[in-house]
Amino acid sequence: MTSQTRRDFTSDNIAGAAPQILAALAHANAGTAASYGADPFTAALERTAEELFERPVGIFPVATGTAANALALSVLARPFEAVYCHAAGHIMTDECGAPEFYSAGAKLLGLPARDGRLQPEQIAQAVAFARSMGVHHVQPAVVSISQATEWGTVYGIDALAALAAQAHALGLTLHMDGARFANAVARLGCTPAQATWKAGVDILSLGATKNGALAAEAIVVFDPARAAELSFRRKRSGHLWSKMRFLSAQLQAYLTDDLWLRNARQANAMAERLAAGLAALPGCRLVQPMEANELFIALPPAVPARLRAAGYGFYDWPAPDGETDPVVRLVTSFDMTPADVDGLLAAARAG
Amino acid sequence: MTSQTRRDFTSDNIAGAAPQILAALAHANAGTAASYGADPFTAALERTAEELFERPVGIFPVATGTAANALALSVLARPFEAVYCHAAGHIMTDECGAPEFYSAGAKLLGLPARDGRLQPEQIAQAVAFARSMGVHHVQPAVVSISQATEWGTVYGIDALAALAAQAHALGLTLHMDGARFANAVARLGCTPAQATWKAGVDILSLGATKNGALAAEAIVVFDPARAAELSFRRKRSGHLWSKMRFLSAQLQAYLTDDLWLRNARQANAMAERLAAGLAALPGCRLVQPMEANELFIALPPAVPARLRAAGYGFYDWPAPDGETDPVVRLVTSFDMTPADVDGLLAAARAG
Amino acid sequence: MTSQTRRDFTSDNIAGAAPQILAALAHANAGTAASYGADPFTAALERTAEELFERPVGIFPVATGTAANALALSVLARPFEAVYCHAAGHIMTDECGAPEFYSAGAKLLGLPARDGRLQPEQIAQAVAFARSMGVHHVQPAVVSISQATEWGTVYGIDALAALAAQAHALGLTLHMDGARFANAVARLGCTPAQATWKAGVDILSLGATKNGALAAEAIVVFDPARAAELSFRRKRSGHLWSKMRFLSAQLQAYLTDDLWLRNARQANAMAERLAAGLAALPGCRLVQPMEANELFIALPPAVPARLRAAGYGFYDWPAPDGETDPVVRLVTSFDMTPADVDGLLAAARAG
Amino acid sequence: MTSQTRRDFTSDNIAGAAPQILAALAHANAGTAASYGADPFTAALERTAEELFERPVGIFPVATGTAANALALSVLARPFEAVYCHAAGHIMTDECGAPEFYSAGAKLLGLPARDGRLQPEQIAQAVAFARSMGVHHVQPAVVSISQATEWGTVYGIDALAALAAQAHALGLTLHMDGARFANAVARLGCTPAQATWKAGVDILSLGATKNGALAAEAIVVFDPARAAELSFRRKRSGHLWSKMRFLSAQLQAYLTDDLWLRNARQANAMAERLAAGLAALPGCRLVQPMEANELFIALPPAVPARLRAAGYGFYDWPAPDGETDPVVRLVTSFDMTPADVDGLLAAARAG
Repeated sequence: MTSQTRRDFTSDNIAGAAPQILAALAHANAGTAASYGADPFTAALERTAEELFERPVGIFPVATGTAANALALSVLARPFEAVYCHAAGHIMTDECGAPEFYSAGAKLLGLPARDGRLQPEQIAQAVAFARSMGVHHVQPAVVSISQATEWGTVYGIDALAALAAQAHALGLTLHMDGARFANAVARLGCTPAQATWKAGVDILSLGATKNGALAAEAIVVFDPARAAELSFRRKRSGHLWSKMRFLSAQLQAYLTDDLWLRNARQANAMAERLAAGLAALPGCRLVQPMEANELFIALPPAVPARLRAAGYGFYDWPAPDGETDPVVRLVTSFDMTPADVDGLLAAARAG
Repeated sequence: MTSQTRRDFTSDNIAGAAPQILAALAHANAGTAASYGADPFTAALERTAEELFERPVGIFPVATGTAANALALSVLARPFEAVYCHAAGHIMTDECGAPEFYSAGAKLLGLPARDGRLQPEQIAQAVAFARSMGVHHVQPAVVSISQATEWGTVYGIDALAALAAQAHALGLTLHMDGARFANAVARLGCTPAQATWKAGVDILSLGATKNGALAAEAIVVFDPARAAELSFRRKRSGHLWSKMRFLSAQLQAYLTDDLWLRNARQANAMAERLAAGLAALPGCRLVQPMEANELFIALPPAVPARLRAAGYGFYDWPAPDGETDPVVRLVTSFDMTPADVDGLLAAARAG
Repeated sequence: MTSQTRRDFTSDNIAGAAPQILAALAHANAGTAASYGADPFTAALERTAEELFERPVGIFPVATGTAANALALSVLARPFEAVYCHAAGHIMTDECGAPEFYSAGAKLLGLPARDGRLQPEQIAQAVAFARSMGVHHVQPAVVSISQATEWGTVYGIDALAALAAQAHALGLTLHMDGARFANAVARLGCTPAQATWKAGVDILSLGATKNGALAAEAIVVFDPARAAELSFRRKRSGHLWSKMRFLSAQLQAYLTDDLWLRNARQANAMAERLAAGLAALPGCRLVQPMEANELFIALPPAVPARLRAAGYGFYDWPAPDGETDPVVRLVTSFDMTPADVDGLLAAARAG
Repeated sequence: MTSQTRRDFTSDNIAGAAPQILAALAHANAGTAASYGADPFTAALERTAEELFERPVGIFPVATGTAANALALSVLARPFEAVYCHAAGHIMTDECGAPEFYSAGAKLLGLPARDGRLQPEQIAQAVAFARSMGVHHVQPAVVSISQATEWGTVYGIDALAALAAQAHALGLTLHMDGARFANAVARLGCTPAQATWKAGVDILSLGATKNGALAAEAIVVFDPARAAELSFRRKRSGHLWSKMRFLSAQLQAYLTDDLWLRNARQANAMAERLAAGLAALPGCRLVQPMEANELFIALPPAVPARLRAAGYGFYDWPAPDGETDPVVRLVTSFDMTPADVDGLLAAARAG
């Protein structure tokens, strides 16, 4: 067994950058370029984004997903307002309070969802309660979802549209944390426009880092009126690069020749191969539908022990109610090969 | 005249990255690496920083100088406290309120200084006034200086130590915005330790982007007690990269084999060449001592007109009191050559 | 039936001020007095507070409970930290995000508790989870409880001490929202010292408005090191009255001759009379132990209908799981008489 | 000399409350009243305010001027925006950073003005500079003035209208800190409408505490669209009283039967008597026009010494450039009598 077959399944952020992204950096390095986004790479990215989304958009590159999410929410939620999200969503539990920081104290209100997907009725009930409390309660302003979700599931277009319609009917906006947007779109087989504004998304955090960029995400704003504010908020938070060309060039390469989709399809395909292989093992079963590049799977205790003994990395995960076997999370990446997956499967079977 | 001789003197942030930095990124890209700073590149950087500064330090890489400054100030100044800085300092006028954002509203109080260098007596007077106001006034907490300053001057070690001693005697800490720290150290000919904590600096924003990095700065904390807090504040602000190796590798390359000093010496030398050449022209005179890589120079009106006609870029600058000729700022970079400078000088003389 | 017997049971904050409090205001009005707390009334209050709590304390009068809670939390929780509280606690649901505002975005994490009382094990589990998440999760800093609780129950001294011990063992502090502190102490029959710092409370929001003041609460700080910071935070938030004597005089009167306890005992006694009377009605039963001046009671639907028809005010309340009858909240006040209570009981029986 | 003639001239906030205000509190205390502003006293105040200002307004009572100013600014300035004010204005130097706190870090930019009155040209220049800086500079949003000013002067209606017109032409709003609004209106002899919205004021901090209230100010909003936001911000900051009737009743009494104007006229008249008396003394001269109830006066050194020896209180004040004699500030109050003033004058002459 070579070292390549002992590939780590801990997360998609332990991969490096795709070669096309590194090449784009080298290309962008030639000569001087105006700073703070007045460079031709950024201008080109803006055109690319509008073609991709089939409409005028504001696109604001930043280096991290936390920055993208927190900045996006800061233009949607005033300090005395509320953001509804999944109770275990990334913005709720994994960003050290970034949304609260950027919004000057807006409140995230977590809603439960077995498979990570919020339902329109939950929003309706939560908003009704909040509004019944009058001035004493933070005011409903935003629904924020992850696509793909924290549990590896993907909102279907209809479910997304229904959620957006409910949010809008109540006067709320819809933010999509698309850290794994590419994996979701690859799964859905739809256009980026269908996956976002056509379904009612108001602001998208467009992820690239987990899917091949070095450090690049973007806030994509479908309502041009919010774009001006983001320019200042980005600068004020230290997320405007002086040599912005190096952010924009990453994203430009990412969106060129479908690199983003090709990478995501590879990660998704490896996840499917992994799921199929593990499902064939006695006692292994998915505890969430596998719809992107993350598996949440219950395993007989011997299996994770064998995998760890063989040098494989992955996270133990909280088991859902009623599940007695240990649950683990396995994440695949754009740069994994069938041999990487097969290596893990072989180790899992080795006992 | 080739395109190389029409080099732009607008700022040092229009240059690209040094080849050693790009090579380091490519090198760091091999294989997987633990995310969020648990990678070997970050560990190596921490060792390098401690060798460089000759003592234990906390080092926190981020992508921008605004982030470095604002994060540094956020651990030194509580929301009801005051930061004294130059009235035209970068944190005061060029960061869209980032220090106020990160510190939850601490107040920057600007002090005048003809050459950009604050004096101990100014601090003493300002603190005495603030404290006479009791609970009604924000409380003095920090002195923040730029080294090199906004006016291209450099604090001497003795002046720095005197300022730090005054700050400390009053219970304040000293932050150094070192966006051009390398240029200052190159000028001073001292060690990084002498230029910082040995003279009394408590926290340093260590710049690299203007001097050859793609996007990399670091907060260097000389008091380990403040380091834990910074970990959380960096994450919370979205400045912790998931693929942190790509930040750390830039800084590691920057600090290896004196790349930082070699680059700064080149920029400084080009500034000296430029200053000498312009000083020889009738009616041209520096309005600030030229001590790093920025010139502030008064010129007969025909000169800037000629330079612009020849395609040179640079900023007009507010003239100091009593100066009637136009003043411009010219900035040199690590990647400029004597030919670049001579090209500008020829154009200046061409009339 | 006179209008006095149709007394409103909606809340204890619909009552006016006790005559002793109004008299104290009139008394304090004589002559000039130094502003912003340098007056003799404030000095006297500080002595009174130290006698009452049997130790040095910092006492900071403010006009509202929301201000007291939010200011107290702002000195205990840094922006990247977490406050554990009851999932339906006042600070969580009724203050429009004030704790988040004052703490610059610290996160409130709600824990469930059937009777409103948090358990030490809950804190231990929540902190263990948070710390397992490293830099990605807000850091545990504070446990905040209400005494009496939101559900009208009262922590016993042993339960309080156990909770405080757990918090302190984990490095957290304990804040007590004492909007109804007097009712709790009256119930417990202990000293204020026993009810607070001797059991491990670090900061108390001492309520007076619901119990007879016009508008007066106080933050009582048992750790003198935190007092200086509060002076500035109170001023900065606009809660330092220029004519501070009018806040201090209210509290001084409140704490003089046991007015606070006498008022609370009256309210508690009226609640007991009310509970006893309602419990005698077929189908009425308390859904929470009645330990202060609030009743949460399930009633046959005809009863609340009759009460409302008779002009009585009170809130419907969410029923606990498994309760099918409507639940209402009835609150008694310091200025209620047996006739007030008997009037409601008569109306309840009238069918 | 009786104690009445040794009246303190330190500030108008050392006076007590007017008897009409205390009577209103006692009157409001009868019976229960709905909490949080749903009481008849608050409703009556809203009607009174609309009559006084001759148009629909939002009026939001709070207990302090700092709260009124900071809340008002928080709805006018977003976190990345700028507020222009006098360099020594109350919001700049005397509120411990309250505007920065409430606005989540908006920046106050101080402009000099010899007599405390900002000029339209200053606004135009400052805004032009800020806008030339692009995304790097906080964005101009608000002009905030004090009326009467910090220097005891009063903007004439024409000067006010010119300033407002300039602000509006540039897209900025105008906030008036009316801590001494009554003194200014009494001086101007105009209507409240003429003194505010008819001249272009967008939001007024209406002071009452310095002029006879116990603790009561109000934010008066002339643009109804901003009112909803203020409801939540006031609650969130802990400035919504549960027994709101006690704030509203103070203001209602204040605005009834011209109490506010009668009180202010008395204070202004006493200031005129004081100014006339002191001006007659050799070597005494006003260093600011005396237009409300504050005198800034240069005195031969023996005079303040004599006054202090006689037991009079007042502040030394920074002398304007070129003034070599000591300068003091003397403030008169609504409850001062000619005998109070004459006592000071006699003591001043006593040498």
